[in-house]
Amino acid sequence: MKNKNAISPTRSQDYPEWYQQVVKAADLAESSPVRGCMVIKPWGYAVWENMKSELDRMFKETGHENAYFPLLIPLSFLEKEAEHVEGFAKECAVVTHHRLEKGQDGGLVPKGSLEEPLIIRPTSETIIGHSYSRWVQSYRDLPILINQWANVMRWEMRPRVFLRTSEFLWQEGHTVHATSEEAVEETLKMLNIYAAFAEEWMAVPVLKGKKTSDEKFPGAVDTYTIEAMMQDKKAIQAGTSHFLGQNFAKASEIKFINENEKQVYAWTTSWGVTTRLIGGLIMTHGDDDGLILPPKLAPLHLVILPIYKNDDEKKEVVDVCSTLVKDLSLLSYNGSKIRVKLDLRQLRGGEKKWGYIKKGVPLICEIGPRDLEKKQVALTVRNKLVAGKSFVSIDSFLAEVSAILAEFQEGLLNTAKENLKSNIKCIGSLEDFEKFFTDSKGGGFALSHWSEKAIGHEIFQRLKVTPRCLPLDKEYLPVNYHENGTCIFSGDSNGKAVIFSKAY
Amino acid sequence: MKNKNAISPTRSQDYPEWYQQVVKAADLAESSPVRGCMVIKPWGYAVWENMKSELDRMFKETGHENAYFPLLIPLSFLEKEAEHVEGFAKECAVVTHHRLEKGQDGGLVPKGSLEEPLIIRPTSETIIGHSYSRWVQSYRDLPILINQWANVMRWEMRPRVFLRTSEFLWQEGHTVHATSEEAVEETLKMLNIYAAFAEEWMAVPVLKGKKTSDEKFPGAVDTYTIEAMMQDKKAIQAGTSHFLGQNFAKASEIKFINENEKQVYAWTTSWGVTTRLIGGLIMTHGDDDGLILPPKLAPLHLVILPIYKNDDEKKEVVDVCSTLVKDLSLLSYNGSKIRVKLDLRQLRGGEKKWGYIKKGVPLICEIGPRDLEKKQVALTVRNKLVAGKSFVSIDSFLAEVSAILAEFQEGLLNTAKENLKSNIKCIGSLEDFEKFFTDSKGGGFALSHWSEKAIGHEIFQRLKVTPRCLPLDKEYLPVNYHENGTCIFSGDSNGKAVIFSKAY
Repeated sequence: MKNKNAISPTRSQDYPEWYQQVVKAADLAESSPVRGCMVIKPWGYAVWENMKSELDRMFKETGHENAYFPLLIPLSFLEKEAEHVEGFAKECAVVTHHRLEKGQDGGLVPKGSLEEPLIIRPTSETIIGHSYSRWVQSYRDLPILINQWANVMRWEMRPRVFLRTSEFLWQEGHTVHATSEEAVEETLKMLNIYAAFAEEWMAVPVLKGKKTSDEKFPGAVDTYTIEAMMQDKKAIQAGTSHFLGQNFAKASEIKFINENEKQVYAWTTSWGVTTRLIGGLIMTHGDDDGLILPPKLAPLHLVILPIYKNDDEKKEVVDVCSTLVKDLSLLSYNGSKIRVKLDLRQLRGGEKKWGYIKKGVPLICEIGPRDLEKKQVALTVRNKLVAGKSFVSIDSFLAEVSAILAEFQEGLLNTAKENLKSNIKCIGSLEDFEKFFTDSKGGGFALSHWSEKAIGHEIFQRLKVTPRCLPLDKEYLPVNYHENGTCIFSGDSNGKAVIFSKAY
Repeated sequence: MKNKNAISPTRSQDYPEWYQQVVKAADLAESSPVRGCMVIKPWGYAVWENMKSELDRMFKETGHENAYFPLLIPLSFLEKEAEHVEGFAKECAVVTHHRLEKGQDGGLVPKGSLEEPLIIRPTSETIIGHSYSRWVQSYRDLPILINQWANVMRWEMRPRVFLRTSEFLWQEGHTVHATSEEAVEETLKMLNIYAAFAEEWMAVPVLKGKKTSDEKFPGAVDTYTIEAMMQDKKAIQAGTSHFLGQNFAKASEIKFINENEKQVYAWTTSWGVTTRLIGGLIMTHGDDDGLILPPKLAPLHLVILPIYKNDDEKKEVVDVCSTLVKDLSLLSYNGSKIRVKLDLRQLRGGEKKWGYIKKGVPLICEIGPRDLEKKQVALTVRNKLVAGKSFVSIDSFLAEVSAILAEFQEGLLNTAKENLKSNIKCIGSLEDFEKFFTDSKGGGFALSHWSEKAIGHEIFQRLKVTPRCLPLDKEYLPVNYHENGTCIFSGDSNGKAVIFSKAY
């Protein structure tokens, strides 16, 4: 029977609304009075900090350094790359004035009109390119491998917290190379880092692939992507890595003298992941009781809740709990100390416990007077809620806690892999394609042959389905997969296998 | 004799220009095409990352959590606190449109006019207050202890990299408390954390004090500050902590039901340090050869430069260098691994070495064929350049490197303390005050008695001198210091001792 504390509606009743309610119940974030801008609350931000910390380590390990470039971009910079400005013009926050003065009615109005409007960065290729054009003179200056952690702004008409917000946080890597080969290698290296991070840290399996030409980053030669499947079988683009060719080098005049003493244009890449990863995490692992966090990214691995009826009991119970905290703090999981909290707030036990269930803390230990006698804890494992709690001796809990967390992490990944694998289908005709996406029990990822001639086919808009990628590896693909075939949309015989789905 | 690689001009020739040249030579940052916005380059950003990491640890250790609030603030929010908007109106970047469209001449122009202009946050009291007003309902919700790492924008007409930029990076703590006492306690706690960070990590001694009423944060009841003295005896405000009383609680309607079941306004604080700390670091420790970094914040503790003439020598030398790197990496200083780099670039030795001197790396080890025989390194200690390099056996270097770094850090602090102490003078008359700040050998911090009646005295603007603070402790003050006395500017007998100086 559904607990009264559980999330309402359930996933099967209304998945999008369930998502909003999970975000709220877990106290992750909320919308703000500024259209499309969110407030990331401490619990949500702590998840982001853990993501950042690991990604940052991965970037540095592969030779990247961090730097910081201006928030504002002169309009003329954006215009330097035609596809680029075309792609972002509709969603630019524009700064036109630099002070406020009292107007005629006494209220403040913008004054100090700028000669050239400034755009709040929707992405930083053009402003970073301006710096790079001066930093790069010789082949000896290459490669440049720089990443930036920053906020960006893309005006959003239909915002959804984490998934689609006007302001979001991200990292954007921007690299410059002497050759096309090196730049492609970098693009794929970062794609692989994103995929490894998604699987190993987020417990979110992803399809690596290349975007079709109509879906690539404005100004890129090729965009590579990692695509994850949510529990409602829709896709989320979880990270992208762009081979920019010489497009931005030409736009920003990034040239260098090569080893043959000729001046040539450089080759650049860019790659990014954003706070929407948190949305993907929620929709991959959450259940009808709320958020479930993979231990590697959980701000708390476990919480300890003392249970008592009077002051005498309280003293004894809290003493044992405090000792347990101390003992746990000496242990480690996945290379960092066990993150444990003893919650002494004066709240009813059920209310307290449900708070942590909804926040997705992997392990909850309750200790009451009866547990003291037996030297045990009542352990609730968040992804096995249905099985209820089990009693474990304190000694064996201490001995096994790291293994329990590792098993938890692995369990989440396996469940998500199962969901992904079982919902990718080879679809060989337009009719089946339509059926796949309209049948109430259907949906998922359709693997169909597609060619450029299919771009603009009415079926995509009608079914709200988009090409997600040309898959790069076969790990999660059906066995009857063929890379080449006739395009089911246009009849063109030069089709390639493409993943299609509805997407966030 | 001055080395041709040294910074030109020297500090005594032209201190402000020396500063700009050090920033350039150390590759810390550069100005950008957007007025007043800087590009923080990898070496400068790495220093900021080290600062962030320690400050963040200190904040979390004292119970604060991180969160993230919107970049944009509705104009009407800013207007809620009269002094506040008055203080920031002249330097606001204003967003007025949310897309770009082709104009009549074919170029893009701002479209999608916003109903209400949005301000890029110059500080976040008002937008965060909006959230807090909904988060705080009962005394049980208090205190709220939140910090944000973010970029902010205050339009700057006379920008100077790190010291005064239109966009800068900072952290802003925003806390809410049930009582005035608690809020004051928090304000002072954070001031003490800033002072401890400045002294223990930056090796920058600071005066803690309270701002005079004309210098406090717009909207604050009291502003506390840490003030450091640069080598040219001018002050830099290195961090501030504000007791906001109920001013912002009233502006944002942050109210709660207290233990007596009455609804009352809360008490708030805010506190911040910014990337200008890097400017303070440069001007405190740098010398005529460039930057000097305190080891605790240096991205590299030491660099190893192999010296050889041919391939045979190269192999032998690089082997020994690589072993040294490995051995050093096992050692730690100040709780983190020794940060060491082996530089194998093909550059002339002098050029390479001077690069690191100018970047302020504390220790430089050169190893050539002759050193191999003697199992030694040629060690250059960055703050003892005049003494030249010394030869140390590899074994004793490994044994002593942590102590050498600790001594380096302490040496910087002691030199800076000496500069601070010897340049604070009690000044008892307006005549001496004028002499103190106009004498070419004078200057520094004048400790004079002042009362509110002195606000607006012509001498301040004429001499470009400002009151820095009413000092809170006496550690660095002259022994003849008296807290009370007659105001030398107005003759008011209720004067208090105030530190005055020119400032960045």
